[in-house]
Amino acid sequence: MRKLFVIGIGAGDPDQVTVQAIKAMCQVNVFFLIGKGAEKQELTDVRAAILAEYARQPHTIVEISDPPRDRGVPASGADAAYQGAVADWHEARAELLERAFAETDGVGGILVWGDPSLYDSTLRIVERVLERERVHFDYEVIPGVTSAQALAAAHRMVLHEIGEPLHITTGRRLREEGLAAGQSTLVMLDGECSFTQVPGDDVYIWWGAYLGMPDEVIVEGPLRVVEGRIARRRAALRAAKGWIMDIYLLRRSV
Amino acid sequence: MRKLFVIGIGAGDPDQVTVQAIKAMCQVNVFFLIGKGAEKQELTDVRAAILAEYARQPHTIVEISDPPRDRGVPASGADAAYQGAVADWHEARAELLERAFAETDGVGGILVWGDPSLYDSTLRIVERVLERERVHFDYEVIPGVTSAQALAAAHRMVLHEIGEPLHITTGRRLREEGLAAGQSTLVMLDGECSFTQVPGDDVYIWWGAYLGMPDEVIVEGPLRVVEGRIARRRAALRAAKGWIMDIYLLRRSV
Ligand SMILES: C[S@@+](CC[C@H](N)C(=O)[O-])C[C@H]1O[C@@H](n2cnc3c(N)ncnc32)[C@H](O)[C@@H]1O
Ligand SMILES: C[S@@+](CC[C@H](N)C(=O)[O-])C[C@H]1O[C@@H](n2cnc3c(N)ncnc32)[C@H](O)[C@@H]1O
Repeated sequence: MRKLFVIGIGAGDPDQVTVQAIKAMCQVNVFFLIGKGAEKQELTDVRAAILAEYARQPHTIVEISDPPRDRGVPASGADAAYQGAVADWHEARAELLERAFAETDGVGGILVWGDPSLYDSTLRIVERVLERERVHFDYEVIPGVTSAQALAAAHRMVLHEIGEPLHITTGRRLREEGLAAGQSTLVMLDGECSFTQVPGDDVYIWWGAYLGMPDEVIVEGPLRVVEGRIARRRAALRAAKGWIMDIYLLRRSV
Repeated sequence: MRKLFVIGIGAGDPDQVTVQAIKAMCQVNVFFLIGKGAEKQELTDVRAAILAEYARQPHTIVEISDPPRDRGVPASGADAAYQGAVADWHEARAELLERAFAETDGVGGILVWGDPSLYDSTLRIVERVLERERVHFDYEVIPGVTSAQALAAAHRMVLHEIGEPLHITTGRRLREEGLAAGQSTLVMLDGECSFTQVPGDDVYIWWGAYLGMPDEVIVEGPLRVVEGRIARRRAALRAAKGWIMDIYLLRRSV
């Protein structure tokens, strides 16, 4: 039975890779690089640095470019349409991975940003490849440090109040649902500074961009005091580098 | 300025340690081992294995035994009383850490199970030591793999539905608040199989104990079908080993 490793590599700092991930990479003959976007050269660089330092040598790298995503579907409100578009896109990616897998030999590996369990499609795509039953393999998941942990470490904070819950959500959901009362809310995948739409004078924000990377920036403070500064900083960084990845925690004071 | 590293070590498998954690451990002269409970020898063994393999040699280990916790406070309902008891206990721990820090030299280190940002008191205690202003130091947090990621990896799953939130909570909170509609809920710190108190025939559970350790057990299935099996298995494992650590994800099917 052929084997595939899905390996969490941490969320920015190549040193966030675990010993378990290194041991897995040492067994991999062919790495599948899914969804390489030219604009995010630095993200590719982190992966390349990790492979150069820790992977079994020699290894093959097969790049799987992204199928076009149906951007016609509105990114809010119509959940069924949104999820349908995502499902189609997963299927297209599954076909590409299936072909790449069939055309290669040996142990396969996929490096996943952060951890595969949080806002990442790799596992859903791998499951689809298996369901299609054209290629057969066993796969194993190696957990990694997530960007939630990277944010908390940069701010040296616990993500929730003592004994209380932590809610993890997306920018889209935050806009639709608002900030739930009395809970710490971690927001990922927010392209629109959705925190500016959260009402109230009693909200605190801990924000971070490019965590673990040379350009890491963090800002914290009362939301109403720092929101403008974060939004401007974010726009400037994004303009300068061509891309940004940011994440934040919101909490209403009690 | 003296330095202290608070280092996430992963949630059970010594190989879950990151390269960043190893580099930090190589700088540490004195490790503070907080809250060693005799009954959890295996948890101590994981830390000892990590130190033996990766820490700077020689290093000093200072054990800080736990101050008694006020168990008289009911563990549910009276939130203010509960949080007050926790705060007193943090203060008592802070005093012990302060003394241990003052009595030693060089770079300090504290190994934290999983990641320091999730249901761990180390950072709150370190902040208290700083606030007391009797010892002065700078500290840095090294993020680690959490038990949430370990659970997801063992089940090879994403913790939430596509684009939807993830709610992380405790057994106590789950009993008090029930399972929120339409969201994936990850439950930690549950000593009472609180999942058996969640009503409904449409809930699915992914459960895991001793994740990443030699005795790792995972069970998944419709809650009403597997809950009895999990509860019995948990009781038997706990009786046999003297302790258990388990975590689970609940989700209502839509
Ligand atoms: C597609 S999700 C992938 C998350 C990843 N699987 C993880 O475990 O962190 C991408 C989102 O993660 C967050 N993110 C990932 N890496 C980050 C970093 N280094 N700095 C800031 N945010 C980051 C951002 O919110 C970004 O929009
Ligand atoms: C005090 S909290 C510490 C959590 C830790 N900071 C983390 O990042 O995972 C302890 C709880 O974490 C979960 N846990 C930690 N390690 C685990 C493991 N190896 N297997 C199952 N559950 C674990 C259990 O729910 C346990 O009650």
